[in-house]
Amino acid sequence: MGDLILEEGETLRGCKLAYRTHGKLNAARDNAVLVTTWFSGTGKVMEDVYVGPGRALDPAKYFIVIVDQIGSGLSSSPHNTPGAQSMARFPRVRIGDDVQAQRRLLKDAFGITELALVFGGSMGGQQVYEWAVRYPDQVKRAAVVAATARNTFHDFMFTETLIEALTSDPHWNKGWYERGEDVRDGLNRMAGIFAVMGWSTEFYEKKRWQSLLGMSSERDFINGVMRAYFAPMDANNLLCMAWKWQRGDVSRHTAGDLAKALGRITARCCVMPISHDMFFPPRDCEAEQRLIPRSAFRVIEAVEGHMALNGFDPAYTAQVDKHLRELLDFPA
Amino acid sequence: MGDLILEEGETLRGCKLAYRTHGKLNAARDNAVLVTTWFSGTGKVMEDVYVGPGRALDPAKYFIVIVDQIGSGLSSSPHNTPGAQSMARFPRVRIGDDVQAQRRLLKDAFGITELALVFGGSMGGQQVYEWAVRYPDQVKRAAVVAATARNTFHDFMFTETLIEALTSDPHWNKGWYERGEDVRDGLNRMAGIFAVMGWSTEFYEKKRWQSLLGMSSERDFINGVMRAYFAPMDANNLLCMAWKWQRGDVSRHTAGDLAKALGRITARCCVMPISHDMFFPPRDCEAEQRLIPRSAFRVIEAVEGHMALNGFDPAYTAQVDKHLRELLDFPA
Repeated sequence: MGDLILEEGETLRGCKLAYRTHGKLNAARDNAVLVTTWFSGTGKVMEDVYVGPGRALDPAKYFIVIVDQIGSGLSSSPHNTPGAQSMARFPRVRIGDDVQAQRRLLKDAFGITELALVFGGSMGGQQVYEWAVRYPDQVKRAAVVAATARNTFHDFMFTETLIEALTSDPHWNKGWYERGEDVRDGLNRMAGIFAVMGWSTEFYEKKRWQSLLGMSSERDFINGVMRAYFAPMDANNLLCMAWKWQRGDVSRHTAGDLAKALGRITARCCVMPISHDMFFPPRDCEAEQRLIPRSAFRVIEAVEGHMALNGFDPAYTAQVDKHLRELLDFPA
Repeated sequence: MGDLILEEGETLRGCKLAYRTHGKLNAARDNAVLVTTWFSGTGKVMEDVYVGPGRALDPAKYFIVIVDQIGSGLSSSPHNTPGAQSMARFPRVRIGDDVQAQRRLLKDAFGITELALVFGGSMGGQQVYEWAVRYPDQVKRAAVVAATARNTFHDFMFTETLIEALTSDPHWNKGWYERGEDVRDGLNRMAGIFAVMGWSTEFYEKKRWQSLLGMSSERDFINGVMRAYFAPMDANNLLCMAWKWQRGDVSRHTAGDLAKALGRITARCCVMPISHDMFFPPRDCEAEQRLIPRSAFRVIEAVEGHMALNGFDPAYTAQVDKHLRELLDFPA
């Protein structure tokens, strides 16, 4: 999509956005749905877990565009950018940059200037909030799972522990490793921290790693799920996203006034925290929801905590679908 | 106290226990209270926060013995043990070893064979449970704040992240650093993880680091409280305690049957989780409390989460005192 001037000042040259679409844009161009992606995920998991015939996001009804966030590995990222902005030289990217890029993509590629819905979870939810605050006239509905509009300091510190897990690995070498897998100690440490914060105490107590994920033991789960999940990832990509995640904050547009920023939202919103989420707890999400004029607060019950987002449990996706339908069926 | 044969098989030679006492043992020897210590703490904090005139643990009524756990820095620990068991050569110690050593101390130094109360928090609580399960005829009352009798896998993984924070520091050098402060990067990382798990999201949201702790900013809090707290500590000592913490489990005495182990307790027990504790959540503590015959479940309300144990807030200590009085005033 050409150059993207970033909030931090640098220009991301020859910016590429990876996206996938489902369904067809209607003549009125009013059935477009944007789906965003989270930390460590790509559009693939969003497609698999949230989109399909008979689902709330049904390609028979909506034109669904899933866009990978910058740094996620498919869109422009440290590991796939050549030359002067490669690896450790990749510029700092903010949530707002993703939203700018997505907006340009939707307009240039499809002529879309209004979205029936923007939907995302976790860092994807940060992008949804940014959209709704910044372009209220272009977003008719917004739905967020397990995210906040302004990242909390607690969450900032959590992300900091993930960053330190990677950067403390000598093989990371300030971003100049030969191969991604060289940073395996750091990635393993990150997987360990995510094992603590990504699920919940109840998930382990109920042995959901067995009943839900089919692992034979806790150790089997740590190695076969948590470590295996992060092992193929690129450290610089993760660090790019982590830095962005830490600084997600819609009140940047209102000089730090969160109530004012969220008060700007005209979209109908559905705020869906996950009951057992350890870093985006329902309490934090509810405090924000109260500041959004036309919004509903719907807690998703899932002992999987934050990781429930991955849709392992049909009971989770059924809840999300129900709330999305409620939002979509109601005239915006 | 001479040699201590450890559960893992090795003998801790010339084992030393640090302890402090308050009050006087009465003629009937039935007013003795044992207070244990937690991870990263010494008897000093227990004395300052939980003992005093007019408090539930009043030296005018009770003979209070506060014993530092092995590895804590004052009792035998990697950093203060000379010769063949120094530093990285310090043997693996378990909760049961502490209890054995404490029992010997109480008998040999004071002729105490029955305790009116055993009280402790966090790892100190693990020791309380071990006492109550193993020596039911010697423990008339037991009170535990923010701890479980069998460590959960979630908590094991949390502790693992602390261990990895230290051992990933090249200056740790497999335990053979020159000076404790050389492991400052590892200690800082540990402080960062504790900043996430030790408090709660609400603690940060309410800016309790300011109103309660008098710090000027979140960064001031991280550096001036969290890092400053761990900076003077010895990495090998922390690792010794962390390994022990991970393996606290009273069901070792009943072939893994937790209900059977806790069913052995004859002491009146007061189980006091802290409402916002992220690694010993009330839910986990309540599941155990239900297995203890003569027990009460009392949740301590404190947005400080696990770190409330340090008694920053008079509202916290008032709750603990109230429940301890209820326990102590009732004939065992």
